[in-house]
Amino acid sequence: MWLELRQIFDQLSVDPNVRAVILSGAGPRAFTAGLDVKAASQGMLGGKEGVGKLDPGRIAVQMRRHVASFQDCITAVEKCEKPVICVMHGISYGLGIDLSCTADVRICSKDTQFCVKEVDIGLAADIGTLTRLPKIVGSYGWVKEVSMTARPFGAEEAMRVGFVNSVYEAKADAVSAAIEMGVLMASKSPIAVQGTKELLNWSRDHTVQDGLRYTGVWNSAALQTSDVATALLSGLEKRTPTFEKL
Amino acid sequence: MWLELRQIFDQLSVDPNVRAVILSGAGPRAFTAGLDVKAASQGMLGGKEGVGKLDPGRIAVQMRRHVASFQDCITAVEKCEKPVICVMHGISYGLGIDLSCTADVRICSKDTQFCVKEVDIGLAADIGTLTRLPKIVGSYGWVKEVSMTARPFGAEEAMRVGFVNSVYEAKADAVSAAIEMGVLMASKSPIAVQGTKELLNWSRDHTVQDGLRYTGVWNSAALQTSDVATALLSGLEKRTPTFEKL
Amino acid sequence: MWLELRQIFDQLSVDPNVRAVILSGAGPRAFTAGLDVKAASQGMLGGKEGVGKLDPGRIAVQMRRHVASFQDCITAVEKCEKPVICVMHGISYGLGIDLSCTADVRICSKDTQFCVKEVDIGLAADIGTLTRLPKIVGSYGWVKEVSMTARPFGAEEAMRVGFVNSVYEAKADAVSAAIEMGVLMASKSPIAVQGTKELLNWSRDHTVQDGLRYTGVWNSAALQTSDVATALLSGLEKRTPTFEKL
Amino acid sequence: MWLELRQIFDQLSVDPNVRAVILSGAGPRAFTAGLDVKAASQGMLGGKEGVGKLDPGRIAVQMRRHVASFQDCITAVEKCEKPVICVMHGISYGLGIDLSCTADVRICSKDTQFCVKEVDIGLAADIGTLTRLPKIVGSYGWVKEVSMTARPFGAEEAMRVGFVNSVYEAKADAVSAAIEMGVLMASKSPIAVQGTKELLNWSRDHTVQDGLRYTGVWNSAALQTSDVATALLSGLEKRTPTFEKL
Amino acid sequence: MWLELRQIFDQLSVDPNVRAVILSGAGPRAFTAGLDVKAASQGMLGGKEGVGKLDPGRIAVQMRRHVASFQDCITAVEKCEKPVICVMHGISYGLGIDLSCTADVRICSKDTQFCVKEVDIGLAADIGTLTRLPKIVGSYGWVKEVSMTARPFGAEEAMRVGFVNSVYEAKADAVSAAIEMGVLMASKSPIAVQGTKELLNWSRDHTVQDGLRYTGVWNSAALQTSDVATALLSGLEKRTPTFEKL
Amino acid sequence: MWLELRQIFDQLSVDPNVRAVILSGAGPRAFTAGLDVKAASQGMLGGKEGVGKLDPGRIAVQMRRHVASFQDCITAVEKCEKPVICVMHGISYGLGIDLSCTADVRICSKDTQFCVKEVDIGLAADIGTLTRLPKIVGSYGWVKEVSMTARPFGAEEAMRVGFVNSVYEAKADAVSAAIEMGVLMASKSPIAVQGTKELLNWSRDHTVQDGLRYTGVWNSAALQTSDVATALLSGLEKRTPTFEKL
Repeated sequence: MWLELRQIFDQLSVDPNVRAVILSGAGPRAFTAGLDVKAASQGMLGGKEGVGKLDPGRIAVQMRRHVASFQDCITAVEKCEKPVICVMHGISYGLGIDLSCTADVRICSKDTQFCVKEVDIGLAADIGTLTRLPKIVGSYGWVKEVSMTARPFGAEEAMRVGFVNSVYEAKADAVSAAIEMGVLMASKSPIAVQGTKELLNWSRDHTVQDGLRYTGVWNSAALQTSDVATALLSGLEKRTPTFEKL
Repeated sequence: MWLELRQIFDQLSVDPNVRAVILSGAGPRAFTAGLDVKAASQGMLGGKEGVGKLDPGRIAVQMRRHVASFQDCITAVEKCEKPVICVMHGISYGLGIDLSCTADVRICSKDTQFCVKEVDIGLAADIGTLTRLPKIVGSYGWVKEVSMTARPFGAEEAMRVGFVNSVYEAKADAVSAAIEMGVLMASKSPIAVQGTKELLNWSRDHTVQDGLRYTGVWNSAALQTSDVATALLSGLEKRTPTFEKL
Repeated sequence: MWLELRQIFDQLSVDPNVRAVILSGAGPRAFTAGLDVKAASQGMLGGKEGVGKLDPGRIAVQMRRHVASFQDCITAVEKCEKPVICVMHGISYGLGIDLSCTADVRICSKDTQFCVKEVDIGLAADIGTLTRLPKIVGSYGWVKEVSMTARPFGAEEAMRVGFVNSVYEAKADAVSAAIEMGVLMASKSPIAVQGTKELLNWSRDHTVQDGLRYTGVWNSAALQTSDVATALLSGLEKRTPTFEKL
Repeated sequence: MWLELRQIFDQLSVDPNVRAVILSGAGPRAFTAGLDVKAASQGMLGGKEGVGKLDPGRIAVQMRRHVASFQDCITAVEKCEKPVICVMHGISYGLGIDLSCTADVRICSKDTQFCVKEVDIGLAADIGTLTRLPKIVGSYGWVKEVSMTARPFGAEEAMRVGFVNSVYEAKADAVSAAIEMGVLMASKSPIAVQGTKELLNWSRDHTVQDGLRYTGVWNSAALQTSDVATALLSGLEKRTPTFEKL
Repeated sequence: MWLELRQIFDQLSVDPNVRAVILSGAGPRAFTAGLDVKAASQGMLGGKEGVGKLDPGRIAVQMRRHVASFQDCITAVEKCEKPVICVMHGISYGLGIDLSCTADVRICSKDTQFCVKEVDIGLAADIGTLTRLPKIVGSYGWVKEVSMTARPFGAEEAMRVGFVNSVYEAKADAVSAAIEMGVLMASKSPIAVQGTKELLNWSRDHTVQDGLRYTGVWNSAALQTSDVATALLSGLEKRTPTFEKL
Repeated sequence: MWLELRQIFDQLSVDPNVRAVILSGAGPRAFTAGLDVKAASQGMLGGKEGVGKLDPGRIAVQMRRHVASFQDCITAVEKCEKPVICVMHGISYGLGIDLSCTADVRICSKDTQFCVKEVDIGLAADIGTLTRLPKIVGSYGWVKEVSMTARPFGAEEAMRVGFVNSVYEAKADAVSAAIEMGVLMASKSPIAVQGTKELLNWSRDHTVQDGLRYTGVWNSAALQTSDVATALLSGLEKRTPTFEKL
């Protein structure tokens, strides 16, 4: 399933018909109940038979490769050039946190139960939560608490610490709100919106000076789009602009 | 105007009579209505006549230089060695956000309307907002939302996400509060206050270890100021210390 | 006392009987009243007699060494491999902030008074506050304000900006809550909890890509612990797991 | 062809039967004559018909994606977990330099002609030479000269500046030497050899402290291999050790 | 004089008539005899009268500003977008090393005497040598030796360690060779040559991955120049291409 | 022995009577024959008895701590504030390389045999060689070859690639030369020499801009030493200056 997720987002990233992506969970009960631990641990070692033959140094190589390819699947969402809005509801545990951290915006319904669950199964979260969560929310102490205790937290707390942007009464409301936000993003110049995403992701990982420099180089091409003229003209003429696909 | 802004802040930075700077907007309606797009786009290309002759690779060079020199003007506020308090009111769009992000403290009046407006005119903000805003407020998802939708937001929301430090009834109140804060900063040792600004700016862009090391080297000189003795003595004698200019 | 603090935390870090650490202040009045300035300034210069003989370049060397060894003492708390929960109450000024910033979680009682006090004694805080505080709380402008004005702030404000995780009625309540949180952390796999701490600390100072890579390498060994099997089995059998010391 | 190169090296990277890779050019005349410029430029834009419809901002997006996927193909050689020895002969221009820079060791025959050719076709090399070459050879001024003049250089000069490790009379000799070196590497513990490659690549891009830390974490698993015992025992018994595949 | 140097290079950087710059010393005896120490130390402190009034903390602020503005002057050579070839002869001490390290290529005459002279006047070189020299030559131990002993070294040694690209019989020969190299660079596409300089400078200070990414973004605009077509067409038609100014 | 090495260098670092350090090997046969593997592997696991009880995840924790404390011992040489000259002769294998890479200058006698020996005992070198060697010598391909083949190399090759600064006929000659160099360094201002060491080490791990900034801050204190006046005055009076201890 995770390999498929990667393929889908790699494709959405360059499909000119796509301008924004909503990522939500099927069914009423859960966004995701977390990793199927048994399947994953088998995946790591290529099935039970293989394990016995390897020394811990060689098992480590298999594990590292496995974790890396799993991380790559999830990272495909972050690398998607189009904005991604993640809608969460119900149980959103473990991998649900890893996955949602790669989206640009997170919203949820009131009934959502979040949990950085991994310590409860004997491991430190390794598919991205421990790397991305402290860069998404402001309170580092809160990140440490929920990650080291596996304490569940609700929608209101997620809103207070800035993990989600807004909370809605029910899943359907949250999905509607996400679609509305996606439609709004899709109505803007795709050059502008996708550039904004890229520059914010770059800036997260670089100094202010490197951020400014990269921005200038990026926009030296992007500003040559006809979207700027289209937008300005529409503004003067007080009509809704139409932008070419990207 | 932006070149002038740079000159002024370069000068304030080293003027020994200045201990704190308040940056606010003239007039009742707006802190800044954003970039005069027409003027800027002409500036980028050296006027209309010039454009036709250049290929996109050469236009990109002009644009990069133009964006860089614009960024430098704004960055002069950040580089100013004295603390800068920015007071916003009314319309605070586009460049108003870029500019205020370079101040140390932001406060505003209740009526302030903020907007990362750039996607509405077909471009990704390139004068600093996308680089600095995620390092100023804690919720990365919120930054992405307001930057990719150009959704306006008010004073209360700006306060909630930590973009502004406090909100006042009217512009005049905000200016008074800023002056009070500036006077408070100006009453402290300028060696201490300016060092604090520098060390916080350095730490934003470096690891904890690099931050600690730089701090130690910085203070190996700064601690030799007579301000420490002045401050301690005044404390013992329960009177207000007076510190030399810097 | 600070050298002792370092020795204690170096020892707690590797003592297999320790799974979580609570750091609180003795007595009812203060977590810490800040640095004993007189003692420190003497320490810096090796006593008054020594100062006169040295030129400012040589004094700077002494000061840099002194600050560095002071920083190292405080950093020992951050480097402690076990989770550290800091409980604050009453006066928590100056070094109290430096110290608490190295803990993983901060909680406090309602009566706590915080202050980044250093500018009041003529210096920029150099034992870690200016480096760590902006990475702990989300609002950079707030950090600048409290650091450049030395304005005290209370428990509620500390909670609002994310400096503390929760506020309790009295010191005793806060200590109880810390113990409860520590017991909870101690009941989980120590491989998982200590790995989580390490990976979060690494991620704070590195790019997302470096964070993911380091996580994969770290877990390539950690996942080979028997704690994973212990945790999964206990889950299936609905009983509380017991994990070996670490 | 480049996509195929990537697939091959992705496969070699994890194929347990492979312990070292020799990369050389077919035919007597050239290691590689450089990029087929016409094909590449068509590839960039998806064929001629597509170009006319796009504005320079949108063309830039296509170009960036194209360059990135080209870079990824070449980078697959660097990411290959097994050591790669590159043998060059005859004409080794443009992409030949990009490609060889991703190998671990470069050797060549006396007749090799090297050239960072890109400025001669109007572009700055973008498939890796400008990024990797200055980290491979010691003289930065030499890198600038050959990159900004497109001046060809021979085997002796390549040896003097440290671009190649050794020079052989003819291509066949160089290939033999490469095979000998590959066989030598393959006779060592694969855990040790592949770890060495990884740690050197990591160190190139990180500070000494980050390098030491990463090394310690890496080896905390790798040292648990049975290869250490195998190597030590063989040493004592003065026989050639045999190491399991990896 | 240094302020003038900065203005000149800032101007050369954007003057479309300039495609390459040769930097050499006037007169037969010296490229530069190093800093006029007396003048510099007065400059640092704004003249003798000013010094007495300031405490060491305040003197440090003046010194830091002075060093920074001096560094900025020298850095202007590095930031010049056109390639800079530095020709050295005779005495090339102290600031001569600082300055030449900012050029892209260094060549010299046989009689050149180099010296990182600063420790002989009681200071660590602070105008760039200690920062740039280890990134220019391959042998870090050699850099340490010549910087910590102030041992002079000659042209042959400078060539051996890669500090200069080539050595000529006399100053006139070196200047001729520099002009020839400059003319060669000037005959290439300025988009390509200036892009090459920028990308090499960026790569020196960034990881390979950041280098590749920046390169792709840079070239997404640069590849749209008509210079590529001009170069290719000239190649097919076997004539010398002419490129537009930049 | 390694813990002792650390204590000695920690002490030399701050002992005002020490101005330069020579590090050489006792006896005629070897600088160091490399790690006593048996002792080390026992050290890692706290003796044989302990191993059986631990799972691979817990063994990894012990190993990581052991490697880290070993690295710290070696790093003490690099952190020593005084210049360190390492003299090698005879067998200089394994840890001899790790150790010598932390010195500032390396010289050797003609008979020296170097070897990055670790892959021969089944492990990737983890006490510093793989991190520091590529930053010391210019040819990255050469580093990869000798590290992945464990091929020994002699003094001449070490000189050619820049690993050692010079080669002497016999150990005694090399020691004499080192003492001469040490005496020369010791005759200069210790503020200048020690500052030069620090700034070069900082620059190795930072961008040019960060290097320039740090240098300016460092020298804002260091330039206030009386050594500058002492050096200048002695120069004018053509006599040998005497500098105070540091």
